Amino acid sequence: MASPPLVPVLAVVGVGLIGGSLTLALKRSGAVGKVLGVGRQLKSLRRAQELGLIDEVATLEQAAQQADLIVLATPIGAMASTLKSLRPHLRDHTLISDAGSTKVDVVSVAREALGDRIGQFVPGHPIAGAETVGPEAARADLYDGRNVILTPLEENSVSARERLIAVWEACGARVMLMDPATHDEVLASVSHVPHFLSSVFMWQVASSANSDQRFALAGTGFRDFTRIAAGSPEVWRDIFLSNREAVLGQLQEVRQALDQAEQALQDQDGQALYEFLERAALARRFWASRSGLQ
Amino acid sequence: MASPPLVPVLAVVGVGLIGGSLTLALKRSGAVGKVLGVGRQLKSLRRAQELGLIDEVATLEQAAQQADLIVLATPIGAMASTLKSLRPHLRDHTLISDAGSTKVDVVSVAREALGDRIGQFVPGHPIAGAETVGPEAARADLYDGRNVILTPLEENSVSARERLIAVWEACGARVMLMDPATHDEVLASVSHVPHFLSSVFMWQVASSANSDQRFALAGTGFRDFTRIAAGSPEVWRDIFLSNREAVLGQLQEVRQALDQAEQALQDQDGQALYEFLERAALARRFWASRSGLQ
Repeated sequence: MASPPLVPVLAVVGVGLIGGSLTLALKRSGAVGKVLGVGRQLKSLRRAQELGLIDEVATLEQAAQQADLIVLATPIGAMASTLKSLRPHLRDHTLISDAGSTKVDVVSVAREALGDRIGQFVPGHPIAGAETVGPEAARADLYDGRNVILTPLEENSVSARERLIAVWEACGARVMLMDPATHDEVLASVSHVPHFLSSVFMWQVASSANSDQRFALAGTGFRDFTRIAAGSPEVWRDIFLSNREAVLGQLQEVRQALDQAEQALQDQDGQALYEFLERAALARRFWASRSGLQ
Repeated sequence: MASPPLVPVLAVVGVGLIGGSLTLALKRSGAVGKVLGVGRQLKSLRRAQELGLIDEVATLEQAAQQADLIVLATPIGAMASTLKSLRPHLRDHTLISDAGSTKVDVVSVAREALGDRIGQFVPGHPIAGAETVGPEAARADLYDGRNVILTPLEENSVSARERLIAVWEACGARVMLMDPATHDEVLASVSHVPHFLSSVFMWQVASSANSDQRFALAGTGFRDFTRIAAGSPEVWRDIFLSNREAVLGQLQEVRQALDQAEQALQDQDGQALYEFLERAALARRFWASRSGLQ
């Protein structure tokens, strides 16, 4: 007799790129039995069903009553109400996780919403590109070789933690454990601050008197530097508000670096400018050679 | 009898991506007769000859004596000495142009070096990617559909200006005329400032105590935002020093935009944050749809 799958019934709340790729990856590895899809837009859920991302459309109540694992792949701003709706119907063995880009805030929201069931919530964050959206964008290989961070709570049992690790490994991902505050600082640094700076820069160019002329002469460097600024304003507003302290802290450090570099330029200090540019260039080239992201 | 080519003898000083692609593009369209290559490294020139970028290796003196058009595709820092070496040997009808990323400074250097022959110098700047370097990187189609800016001087004759326009159009480029100061402001905005900010950011991450952890979690957004920071420290130091005033001016405007956006985040003003992110996102998407650079 075949052993039961790792997750007999999975429910995904928000079946877009992140949630849909999770279901495809788990189906690919035979790690999931049935997949329930929950969401605000029935049309989008029907499309997800046609695409084979989910097996059935469900409500939050049905998800809480039937699923062994519920993954929230919604904007962070929607998590409080989602968890509150799930809570009264949760079974004892059901685990909940999420894919939110910040963790301190999500953990706080989850504690508030889940109360004494907080031990069933294992916070997570898959680090995977999100430039495309919707069920059509989902891919079974999205998480292959990518990092997924879990920030387990002290209330999580060892088995809860290990089940979540196994789920993400079944998706092809590499799981890293971290505390929520470290996660938020690191993500503020390498994800949120670049988005903030790219958007500030794009805003400044677009607001200039001769923006048409500037845009006409913008080349490939501009293209790369501003690509992230095209991201969803709703999603990123939520991320910045949710990770406000850490983002402001990192921006402060970037400002200090900017002060130094600008002073070198102001002083026409070619040697200091060169050393600053060289350190940045060497670090970027070293990162590219190790990350696999050219 | 066939009419003579647009440029009977072309000399290129610095036969890398920019210079080599120019010679290939002109050969492709039959617009050039013979191509002389000048440079510091004989090995690199021999390679350029093997690759068909140039027909003969030459000295600056030979270039000045034989060429109808001399294009300087060297770092900006090398232009003063190059022009001084060319000057005593120049014939009256020979034109000189360049591919430098700044124009006010280059024009000033050229006036100083060329003296009463300044009318023979028509400053230019092809806006084309330079992430790869060396003769191997040269491509005949590099300039197809790309913008080339010329910043003609009042001393240039109409025919000098028109010859340069014809040369770049023969390369497949779109020629735009601009005064040097406007060129420098626009390029400071859409090219130099992004490079400066990307390098500052990369420097800050690399200088953090937990940089390894940060780099391990950096994803595709980080990759795009920092790609330009890998560029040559020598080349970019020269560009920043050469366009110092305009870069500092644009950085000042970016700082003002950053102040506003940061204040909105500090104040947890979701509406102001949203409007700022939305304006940036819409501008970026609109630019992508029109520029052909996705």
